[in-house]
Amino acid sequence: MILITGGTFDKEYDELTGNLYFRETHVSEMLRQGRCTVDIDVRTLMMIDSLEMTDADREIILNYCAKCEEEKIVITHGTDTMQDTARALGKANLQKTIVLTGAMIPFKFGSSDGFFNLGSAIAFVQSLPHGVYVAMNGRFFRWENVTKNKKTGMFEEMS
Amino acid sequence: MILITGGTFDKEYDELTGNLYFRETHVSEMLRQGRCTVDIDVRTLMMIDSLEMTDADREIILNYCAKCEEEKIVITHGTDTMQDTARALGKANLQKTIVLTGAMIPFKFGSSDGFFNLGSAIAFVQSLPHGVYVAMNGRFFRWENVTKNKKTGMFEEMS
Amino acid sequence: MILITGGTFDKEYDELTGNLYFRETHVSEMLRQGRCTVDIDVRTLMMIDSLEMTDADREIILNYCAKCEEEKIVITHGTDTMQDTARALGKANLQKTIVLTGAMIPFKFGSSDGFFNLGSAIAFVQSLPHGVYVAMNGRFFRWENVTKNKKTGMFEEMS
Amino acid sequence: MILITGGTFDKEYDELTGNLYFRETHVSEMLRQGRCTVDIDVRTLMMIDSLEMTDADREIILNYCAKCEEEKIVITHGTDTMQDTARALGKANLQKTIVLTGAMIPFKFGSSDGFFNLGSAIAFVQSLPHGVYVAMNGRFFRWENVTKNKKTGMFEEMS
Repeated sequence: MILITGGTFDKEYDELTGNLYFRETHVSEMLRQGRCTVDIDVRTLMMIDSLEMTDADREIILNYCAKCEEEKIVITHGTDTMQDTARALGKANLQKTIVLTGAMIPFKFGSSDGFFNLGSAIAFVQSLPHGVYVAMNGRFFRWENVTKNKKTGMFEEMS
Repeated sequence: MILITGGTFDKEYDELTGNLYFRETHVSEMLRQGRCTVDIDVRTLMMIDSLEMTDADREIILNYCAKCEEEKIVITHGTDTMQDTARALGKANLQKTIVLTGAMIPFKFGSSDGFFNLGSAIAFVQSLPHGVYVAMNGRFFRWENVTKNKKTGMFEEMS
Repeated sequence: MILITGGTFDKEYDELTGNLYFRETHVSEMLRQGRCTVDIDVRTLMMIDSLEMTDADREIILNYCAKCEEEKIVITHGTDTMQDTARALGKANLQKTIVLTGAMIPFKFGSSDGFFNLGSAIAFVQSLPHGVYVAMNGRFFRWENVTKNKKTGMFEEMS
Repeated sequence: MILITGGTFDKEYDELTGNLYFRETHVSEMLRQGRCTVDIDVRTLMMIDSLEMTDADREIILNYCAKCEEEKIVITHGTDTMQDTARALGKANLQKTIVLTGAMIPFKFGSSDGFFNLGSAIAFVQSLPHGVYVAMNGRFFRWENVTKNKKTGMFEEMS
């Protein structure tokens, strides 16, 4: 299952205001373009910038992951606080494989990393053992040891 | 390491003749767009349509995989005979993780699956145990049990 | 009015055969993307590679241009024999402004010139006096004096 | 000649801050993609959002247009105050053909109108008589009678 929570991944450009905003998720379109034959449910839980995500929002995500039937879950999420949501999920010790991913550039803009990251996350969720991970920059990181380097925009282990 | 052998993945449109042809691989450009921080060597072994691949070509690929230092190898390949190359590599029983991938639409055209497949393959090569696999359509297949459905263009297990 | 006759402009990539082919024209989508507010009828007359265009096909195009109400017509056309169709139309001396355009790379592929050429042709058809023209490479050419340079793929006056 | 002044046309997405910003103009790249064989000088005068353009900036643009050799000038410009710059240029009554254009969506994002508009402007500047015009939405408008409809984002004559 892919749970949508928003982030740069799904942002679009509003030509009338010049701002970025959310309309509908593009994940289904991306799965079609990837010719993905894995049986995947796509559910939009929320569409927010992760800088605006609160503990209440993380609680919603956690409950959904805990209660749903699926045991392999990809979550699309803003990169700014992805590690915080990963930590909240990791501590809950659900017996599931959960992989968070996102994008530094919106899928709808040229040169987005979103499509590559989605392919990466869907692969990792099928092959990694139970646990909570972040899939960015072609790699996976465990929830206990991941941080976004604000200067470079890349994810890495905490030194 | 990513070994390039060609395939639709890297084809381009020649505007003067109207045909598809090969120039240079786009894999390095794709790794940059994916903001990939995994340490990856990219080597172009050949640039051919896999319908034109011979046993001699497969021998070259096999020898390279056997002799190189790397123990995790992604191979970009035409989809038409990807399963044949997978079989040749699988039978050799190299103690390595080798993942073949490709694309149904050239990366340089709109709506390509190539970027998604590359993210998928790079993820699988890091997380799957030693063996030879095909990564297409968001999934991985074992070399002993994979075929391309010529009608749908999708990969599946042999029934 | 925009009359569609095919050409590289509207070609698409068939992933199952690896060939280029025609489905539906993309001109309406291009007018939307260009946010075009000019009142334009789009009619598909045929969808063929202009190397396969016969005199009978050119007769069809000529009759349509002669009989329709519109006095400003853009025709999308393959570049290989665009000058021949321009000549057939020019000799008929219709009291209309007719501008032929096309593309060296299909609109649906990356790096197409099609969108730029369409903007160019729609502008020229509104500002040029009656006559038959080819709009390619950012310029307009009169039907009496235009040829496609087969080596460079560019249009120029006959020397 | 194409004079660059900025606007949404040339904006890019800064992945580290999430904001839009200017780097270098993409016009030369667009002329290459359009396979434009017209002899065009591209000069960057400034790179600003037109909401931040001052009368002093307009003075710079006007002086440049007046003093340069060229008699046909396309100006890329933000759409928000394009009509104001057009008015300043129109009143100066230079004996030149000047066409202003821009984009509602940055060229670098998917679904931009920029490339279409550039083709349009380059065509109009070659075929319209001396005067100052805005080329947007597939049409041209005279400087005395053009306004941007803030609700729809389209340009139209003042009612």
